[in-house]
Amino acid sequence: MIAIAVHGGAGRWDEAERDAAVAGVRGAAAAGWQVLETGGTSLDAVTAAVMVLEDDPLFNAGTGSVLNAEGDAELDAGIMAGDVLTAGGVACIRRVRNPVLVARRVMEATDCVLLAGAEAERFARDQGFADHDPVTERRRARWRAARARQAGERLVPGTVGAVALDRGGRLAAATSTGGRELKRPGRIGDSPVPGAGNYATAQAAVSATGWGEFMLRMATAKAIATRIESGEPPASAAASVLAEMARSFGAPIGVICLDARGAVGIVHGTEGMPHAWRTGDDDDFNARFAA
Amino acid sequence: MIAIAVHGGAGRWDEAERDAAVAGVRGAAAAGWQVLETGGTSLDAVTAAVMVLEDDPLFNAGTGSVLNAEGDAELDAGIMAGDVLTAGGVACIRRVRNPVLVARRVMEATDCVLLAGAEAERFARDQGFADHDPVTERRRARWRAARARQAGERLVPGTVGAVALDRGGRLAAATSTGGRELKRPGRIGDSPVPGAGNYATAQAAVSATGWGEFMLRMATAKAIATRIESGEPPASAAASVLAEMARSFGAPIGVICLDARGAVGIVHGTEGMPHAWRTGDDDDFNARFAA
Repeated sequence: MIAIAVHGGAGRWDEAERDAAVAGVRGAAAAGWQVLETGGTSLDAVTAAVMVLEDDPLFNAGTGSVLNAEGDAELDAGIMAGDVLTAGGVACIRRVRNPVLVARRVMEATDCVLLAGAEAERFARDQGFADHDPVTERRRARWRAARARQAGERLVPGTVGAVALDRGGRLAAATSTGGRELKRPGRIGDSPVPGAGNYATAQAAVSATGWGEFMLRMATAKAIATRIESGEPPASAAASVLAEMARSFGAPIGVICLDARGAVGIVHGTEGMPHAWRTGDDDDFNARFAA
Repeated sequence: MIAIAVHGGAGRWDEAERDAAVAGVRGAAAAGWQVLETGGTSLDAVTAAVMVLEDDPLFNAGTGSVLNAEGDAELDAGIMAGDVLTAGGVACIRRVRNPVLVARRVMEATDCVLLAGAEAERFARDQGFADHDPVTERRRARWRAARARQAGERLVPGTVGAVALDRGGRLAAATSTGGRELKRPGRIGDSPVPGAGNYATAQAAVSATGWGEFMLRMATAKAIATRIESGEPPASAAASVLAEMARSFGAPIGVICLDARGAVGIVHGTEGMPHAWRTGDDDDFNARFAA
């Protein structure tokens, strides 16, 4: 059994952008699926899927990320291989094209799990990642308008994530984001942190999206993985933790998750979340905005 | 019932420093105990206990932290209030006296949970924290010697942490560290990350010490808290997760934890860990190096 699921971020998507967002996650799932179908690893599949969305300026990750309080894009990304429990993450990195690739290099080429800020960018350059400005004119214009009306920090949808199961039975997860618009510089969200917005074990893979601080406080992805490991179906595990977070914080989130048999769990609040998935049981991709 | 437990870091302590380390954690526990005994909150108690050890240059936290690959001290600290699941952390902050106080300001004065690097330091200054050089001559000399023999990254004991239960039944946890000697600049360890090296809920408080990357990959503190929440005694919960980490990573760690009835769990590998604790059932402090 092989399986992949991809999300493009929970929250208030503009009506006009929903179809494009669903097409985007479908394309990302197809990129990951191709890796799996040709015998590649789940780690390569989630990397491929997330790269597609980081490169798509519609999403709030990589190119097209939102800008912080000072008008800079600060990007967070995390990746994890479930079979060996290895993880890598970069936080507040500014000028790279694909943060998920840098996170993967942290995982594969260092003794670290998490690298932050200017030093993370220095690491990326040492590893050969070219200088890249992720800021788009559209995000710049929106930021200017938000500043002009003295808007506060704002959750902009478009965090991206992927979970996959490969033929070897290995699970992996990856998540990437620009975080919140007008966020405080130096703020780290849940996406790069194993157990918060991203997690994978031998039996579960999870990628979450929403107000990152709530995920950090709940250790949301770990909580969902623990439930899946104890035998709860992924959809039920995700729904249970989503309900717990709604009780604790009143916070809607979105989650995609997988177990080692390829069962898919996709849950989100009422505002929707573009998502796509496919397993060995499906003839084609499933792709939609709301459940 | 009130209770406090404090640790001073698992690992290879020099024989000659063990008595002083035990005296140090005893003094820190006493500082926290005084807060609890006079009706203060567990949050104030863990803050007071960790500040004592950050100010003691024997420990690898605050003043006396080890130096990274470039000869700088980069400090990590986290704090969490279990009753309301609020958390704050600072990572890679360089020139402050008490990182745990900055972490607490992140928790209480911002919408963030985690702040890193130069921006975290800027936040600290804005909040009135004075410039303070945490580097001691002893650490500088050891760093020079390690560089001279081209030593690799090294786990130096002395991470500090505290967990407490107050009269109102509220649990809290705090953890602070300089991380590993010769670590990569920008590296974030487990201490500031909720669920990795530090965690508190309505029913459990946990502070862990050891190779931080393993704690990040396992989400160790969350795993222990989840077991305590399901009714497992703290000592057993910590021992179970310690065994799981030994199996997965071959990595010894140290943990202190509490449940909401004041039951204390303290476990560590064979190398020892200075620790002290006291509960409402005790006439005096318990303080020792090994179990």
